[in-house]
Amino acid sequence: MSSQPRNQELAWAKPLSVDLILKVLNVTFLHPFVAWMIPLCMRAQAMPWHHSAIQIAIGYASILTALFFLGILNKQIAYSKPRKVDLSEEVIVITGGASGLGLLIAEVYGMRGATVAVLDVKELESGEARGVSVYKCDVADKEQLARVAVEIERDLGTPTILINNAAIVNGKPLLDLSIDEIDRSFRVNLLSHFYTLKTFLPGMVRAGHGTIVTMSSVLGQVGAAQLTDYSAAKAGLTAMHRSLVAELKSTPNIKTLLVTPGQMSTPLFNGVETPSSFLAPLLEPVDVAREVIAAIDAGSSAVLAMPLYARWVNWMNVMPVGVETILRKLCGVDRAMKGFVGKGETSGGTKSLI
Amino acid sequence: MSSQPRNQELAWAKPLSVDLILKVLNVTFLHPFVAWMIPLCMRAQAMPWHHSAIQIAIGYASILTALFFLGILNKQIAYSKPRKVDLSEEVIVITGGASGLGLLIAEVYGMRGATVAVLDVKELESGEARGVSVYKCDVADKEQLARVAVEIERDLGTPTILINNAAIVNGKPLLDLSIDEIDRSFRVNLLSHFYTLKTFLPGMVRAGHGTIVTMSSVLGQVGAAQLTDYSAAKAGLTAMHRSLVAELKSTPNIKTLLVTPGQMSTPLFNGVETPSSFLAPLLEPVDVAREVIAAIDAGSSAVLAMPLYARWVNWMNVMPVGVETILRKLCGVDRAMKGFVGKGETSGGTKSLI
Repeated sequence: MSSQPRNQELAWAKPLSVDLILKVLNVTFLHPFVAWMIPLCMRAQAMPWHHSAIQIAIGYASILTALFFLGILNKQIAYSKPRKVDLSEEVIVITGGASGLGLLIAEVYGMRGATVAVLDVKELESGEARGVSVYKCDVADKEQLARVAVEIERDLGTPTILINNAAIVNGKPLLDLSIDEIDRSFRVNLLSHFYTLKTFLPGMVRAGHGTIVTMSSVLGQVGAAQLTDYSAAKAGLTAMHRSLVAELKSTPNIKTLLVTPGQMSTPLFNGVETPSSFLAPLLEPVDVAREVIAAIDAGSSAVLAMPLYARWVNWMNVMPVGVETILRKLCGVDRAMKGFVGKGETSGGTKSLI
Repeated sequence: MSSQPRNQELAWAKPLSVDLILKVLNVTFLHPFVAWMIPLCMRAQAMPWHHSAIQIAIGYASILTALFFLGILNKQIAYSKPRKVDLSEEVIVITGGASGLGLLIAEVYGMRGATVAVLDVKELESGEARGVSVYKCDVADKEQLARVAVEIERDLGTPTILINNAAIVNGKPLLDLSIDEIDRSFRVNLLSHFYTLKTFLPGMVRAGHGTIVTMSSVLGQVGAAQLTDYSAAKAGLTAMHRSLVAELKSTPNIKTLLVTPGQMSTPLFNGVETPSSFLAPLLEPVDVAREVIAAIDAGSSAVLAMPLYARWVNWMNVMPVGVETILRKLCGVDRAMKGFVGKGETSGGTKSLI
């Protein structure tokens, strides 16, 4: 009978999400070490081995342990030995690093003593950052990129870590997009990855080591209304990554990271509704940055999908089309862009973040 | 102890593939009607209803029948009511229709009395075809396309069926591709779809009906060595299709067909090895054309994946990365392009088919 608004009533539940619950479970009930404590405690209380309770507890712990080792085996098969990443010797190039997620990663690596080059059309949002050099460059422009690459080589050395992060969102239905907007969208969101790879990959091959980070999106796997261009470009990145992994099999010390995040709370997607903050919580850029940095530091190839639903989104594509249609409706992926504002002021406006 | 070469010995088995076997099963053991014959025959021989054999036969037939109706329900949920396709009133635009699959579809529709416009940089391979008008046009060139669209509107009327089929293959590792080759690849394989949609979709919306056929490829779902650009473009098409389907919900009489074929025996992929002709048989263009034409005629939206493995290829993406790695190795997707000749004369040469 309370007259308080509903969202205020549930304020305590706001940060609660399936991701948080899983995080807690992963270090408690789902942790093999914790699970082995239970039969040991039972035994310590002189419960006989053949008691069904202790047998169930042992079975449960065994399954968790088996899954744990299968997980390790899985990675061993997929990825070769990690490379040693010594930040003092790495030169990091981050496209679109003047704001948002890119800036976060640049700042962290700058503070940790790495040499960081940010490629962006804008100035750093934070004005200045320690250890971060900004090169004014439209990565969708091959000539500018070629010129800046020479400058970076001269100023900082050969880049060994390439973080392809630049992206723009038009957020309009196909019929409302202009041909120029479509061209620009693909040049920035998709072709720039090929341009930067063509520019910096040969240097990594010569150096014998390197890391390539491709920022894709779950949207590539599912598509969404008002995002024909963006989701096509992101899908392209995922396929490019898969092909590249196969081509780089002969240079095992060049690592590849594919990042397919869900919706992030960055200006890029201002005004976009989250269908469910419990099942599909908004990602904070800092959480994505943390995972990306950890993966780069670990020197291993990886596919990073966040939050939890992003890891399961490919299952949509193996469902019968009818089930897929119902799931799409339930999760509201095609309604989400209705309120899109982006970085511009007007609804449906183009914004650019390079 | 025979000294005959092995492939000659097994010549009779050459056309045998998992697809052929399934085709036969679908009209025999897996057909609900056939399955119901069995318990009826048993009953005709005065077998009592409670006999286990008759009960198993009834159970089997019931399951097949249930699956049959679930299949219908599945399509009912996913796609709205089919539209009526009257070929005498449809104007069909086929990009890349001067050879291969595109030409086949153009010829069939031309013979059946539809008005067909082929957009291609080349002349018709067959010289001439009844009912088919050829417009010399590079679909990757927005200006040419805009000019040709005006001509088609004037000569033939408003296009209502758009078959986006043009594609080129470079077939080189990323490091060997030139920037120009990459640009051209994406303009033809991906951007041309957006250009033609921008050009012809408004006419379909005005007419209140239409059919859009997007020729993608299984490569978009898995990627492959030497095909970074091609598979990225094809993945983009699949995502574009999904987004477009969502955007066209409000115009239920504009139908969308996504085609994701496996490897076809067209000049586009000359010299490419088939890892297994039993599990992944080479597709004949005529088989793909038949399915595409049947789907257009039926006036329904659909996703056409051929051969059988193309329908299951998305499962690779939901497997643990280790399993995926082993599957890639087993099916040889990253070795297939090694002997690529394409339409050119030299290995790894570029060929163009627009």
